[in-house]
Amino acid sequence: MDPGLAFGKVLRVVRTEAGLTQEQLALAAGVDRSFVSMVERGVNQPTIRMIFRFAAALGVAPSRLVELTEAKVLLS
Amino acid sequence: MDPGLAFGKVLRVVRTEAGLTQEQLALAAGVDRSFVSMVERGVNQPTIRMIFRFAAALGVAPSRLVELTEAKVLLS
Repeated sequence: MDPGLAFGKVLRVVRTEAGLTQEQLALAAGVDRSFVSMVERGVNQPTIRMIFRFAAALGVAPSRLVELTEAKVLLS
Repeated sequence: MDPGLAFGKVLRVVRTEAGLTQEQLALAAGVDRSFVSMVERGVNQPTIRMIFRFAAALGVAPSRLVELTEAKVLLS
């Protein structure tokens, strides 16, 4: 699976586990809700800076989001 | 330190430790040498997909590059 697609799926899982809506995550990460939606669908890819902002908003380490993405890429 | 800047410094260290020139890393990652140079200087930011390609070219896990970046951001 493409890492961009895999990251999007991971972002959705971690966001919902954190009990956040796309709107709430967008607000906390300082981006538009539509950007969160496009990243989650693999349409947009986050940069390293955005990965750090999403991670901070979700209360996880950036490397954890990437680890989960690695696992999803490997398992696909 | 900005994560983009920190990632660039990490990329340079890991690349030189791997004994690769910018040209060799660029070839292995399928990008232009100038892109490697701009990422290392923090001018360009890699996307999640590029982080995976750099990591594969360097023989490290993508999350390892991000972990090192986290450490550099925290220590700055």
